[in-house]
Amino acid sequence: MTFEAKIRRFVITASQSAGFRFKSESSPDGLPARAGRFATAHGEVQTPAFMPVGTQGTVKAVSPAQLREIGPEVILGNTYHLGLRPGDALVARLGGLHRFMAWDGPILTDSGGFQVFSLSSLRRIHEEGVTFASHIDGSRQFLSPERSMEIQRNLGSDIVMALDECPPGQLDRTKLEASMARTTRWLARCRATELLSHQGLFAINQGGTHLDLRRDHLDQILELDAKAPFQGFAVGGLSVGEPKEAMNATLAEFVRELPPDRPRYLMGVGTPEDLLFGMEQGVDLFDCVLPTREARHGRLLTSRGKLNIKNARHREEDRPADPDCGCYACRTFSRAYLHHLFRAGELLGSTLNSIHNLSYTVGLTRAGRQALLEGRFPDFARRTRELWNTEEP
Amino acid sequence: MTFEAKIRRFVITASQSAGFRFKSESSPDGLPARAGRFATAHGEVQTPAFMPVGTQGTVKAVSPAQLREIGPEVILGNTYHLGLRPGDALVARLGGLHRFMAWDGPILTDSGGFQVFSLSSLRRIHEEGVTFASHIDGSRQFLSPERSMEIQRNLGSDIVMALDECPPGQLDRTKLEASMARTTRWLARCRATELLSHQGLFAINQGGTHLDLRRDHLDQILELDAKAPFQGFAVGGLSVGEPKEAMNATLAEFVRELPPDRPRYLMGVGTPEDLLFGMEQGVDLFDCVLPTREARHGRLLTSRGKLNIKNARHREEDRPADPDCGCYACRTFSRAYLHHLFRAGELLGSTLNSIHNLSYTVGLTRAGRQALLEGRFPDFARRTRELWNTEEP
Repeated sequence: MTFEAKIRRFVITASQSAGFRFKSESSPDGLPARAGRFATAHGEVQTPAFMPVGTQGTVKAVSPAQLREIGPEVILGNTYHLGLRPGDALVARLGGLHRFMAWDGPILTDSGGFQVFSLSSLRRIHEEGVTFASHIDGSRQFLSPERSMEIQRNLGSDIVMALDECPPGQLDRTKLEASMARTTRWLARCRATELLSHQGLFAINQGGTHLDLRRDHLDQILELDAKAPFQGFAVGGLSVGEPKEAMNATLAEFVRELPPDRPRYLMGVGTPEDLLFGMEQGVDLFDCVLPTREARHGRLLTSRGKLNIKNARHREEDRPADPDCGCYACRTFSRAYLHHLFRAGELLGSTLNSIHNLSYTVGLTRAGRQALLEGRFPDFARRTRELWNTEEP
Repeated sequence: MTFEAKIRRFVITASQSAGFRFKSESSPDGLPARAGRFATAHGEVQTPAFMPVGTQGTVKAVSPAQLREIGPEVILGNTYHLGLRPGDALVARLGGLHRFMAWDGPILTDSGGFQVFSLSSLRRIHEEGVTFASHIDGSRQFLSPERSMEIQRNLGSDIVMALDECPPGQLDRTKLEASMARTTRWLARCRATELLSHQGLFAINQGGTHLDLRRDHLDQILELDAKAPFQGFAVGGLSVGEPKEAMNATLAEFVRELPPDRPRYLMGVGTPEDLLFGMEQGVDLFDCVLPTREARHGRLLTSRGKLNIKNARHREEDRPADPDCGCYACRTFSRAYLHHLFRAGELLGSTLNSIHNLSYTVGLTRAGRQALLEGRFPDFARRTRELWNTEEP
């Protein structure tokens, strides 16, 4: 066995024995915010961490080498998209998602549920699962807890998300309770489905902005957890159209009630403001398409707030997009050049803007983690907000 | 003065004193093929060399860092495009094209003539210059020898191309002769226009596939050259729709008649077959959009011939695009992955395909140069052609 193989085996064994155990490293007095870490077969994840989204087996417009330099701790792959195209069985035959997309760091795959409920048409939900028409070719497809686990097993991700029913933002209480009960039954079926030895399963809590429903659902999840522990807990069903104040009020009360010894993942969130607020509430993991999607539209996230590179005022601007940023785009190119690339419709514009937005977002959680470790998180949060609001980008 | 600045000053001085002098390093017995080198302020160019095209201040879909790894000796920028957008005066205010696009190697800029004659509408040619409507916004524009020199001076390229009239492929002899005479008068005006001290001017020979007209035009150019030498000679007006056999017959006779002590540049050529044939005739420099354009359409150039990554037979193919290629795309990803990226419409597909096609094309001229230096060029050319034709890609 080569030295490298030995190391890999050691890491897998270590992570299995650790069971994704979350090690809390710091927590400011009286605040739920925390830094921590947990091991996976493809490396350790240091939290808080933002996960770039690699929907179709690539973080859009960015190569794995560029992504490595940006430095996320873990990235996300989409079960719905990859299951349909190129197909999870094909990815498995080619050695799994890590090898297919040439990313050897940790990968989290979602369950496919969110996309089935948001992208597909002709959707019919049964207790067994969901039938739907593919958004690519209209073909009839089926997703169930067992099928979601099978896809994620074929992809070989490190973190597997349980399949949940994703109710619309403003569903009434009675319907929401029925949906949550089904999510719990699906969670039990996910737990009963075999995964690869290196994979950890995260449960998803629903309940909209109803704090009592969130707590009820968490109780149901913890009953299952007592029999066979989950490796993490996710807060789902937020940032789906409800008022921002309602989401924040829910998070402020609820995140701290999640088991402290496992990572906490706030799904599909979000803006820099959302990340800062989430970190303050004790969230460990975030994901969102916002940084890459905004980048492709020329909208840059900076330490001084948002910046639209299309604006004529950047046409002659020799400064980098964000003078406080050390990413490849900011240390190499002027705003004038990024403005030109956007106006000329050059692909490199999408790439450079994506590199910057991801660097900013990943950097925000990394800086938050550092501030937590050094006991200056409240000060960090205050200064970050001040900078967003007091200077022109 | 910093050490780096000293080095830069030394290089500029060296190149000025050398006056772009072409140093022939090898020439197989009885063949016009040759390896050589010449100095510019931004580094030495080793020939034969293929120049990737950076139309709008970026080689499409590829970052300067990725381009550096691909390793071209010199790249091309477009005077027509950059003069219209973002504007050459703006590029000058921002420190020139090298700094604007973050490419510190040699840059050749074309004269803008070819694009005026192929892209713009409402074109009117006078002795003074050409008026035309911008393809971007229809605005009225003017290009003359002096204006072309001004744009290229503002861009600060290392190699400046003289403005020529670009006649259509099958123009009759009388009209072609009149056009060539105007090109000669324009060449004299280009020569009379001041350039930056580090810039070298290349003259362009026209004459279609008429060998006698080519020779007449070369005589006119050499008359000007005797008064104030050009730094290189280009063969223009080929690969513009005439039959391939006619182009090759012209090159086979004419290239060897160009002055041997200056670089010879075959403009807008071409396919791997064209590059190999051109190298055999003694061409030193090539440029073409083909590698990057084909890449964006999923067509890959390989040592075993062309390959269409869209084809279903690549869907499950674990091999790299070209097993003989060491580029980032080939050493990192399978054909199945490239096929998936193309089908899914992911930008990374264009980037990886472009990296490969440019690596292949730049590598072909680099390998040709090496074979020339080692005295095995005829064998190299024969084996390269055999491989293209005998195996399935």
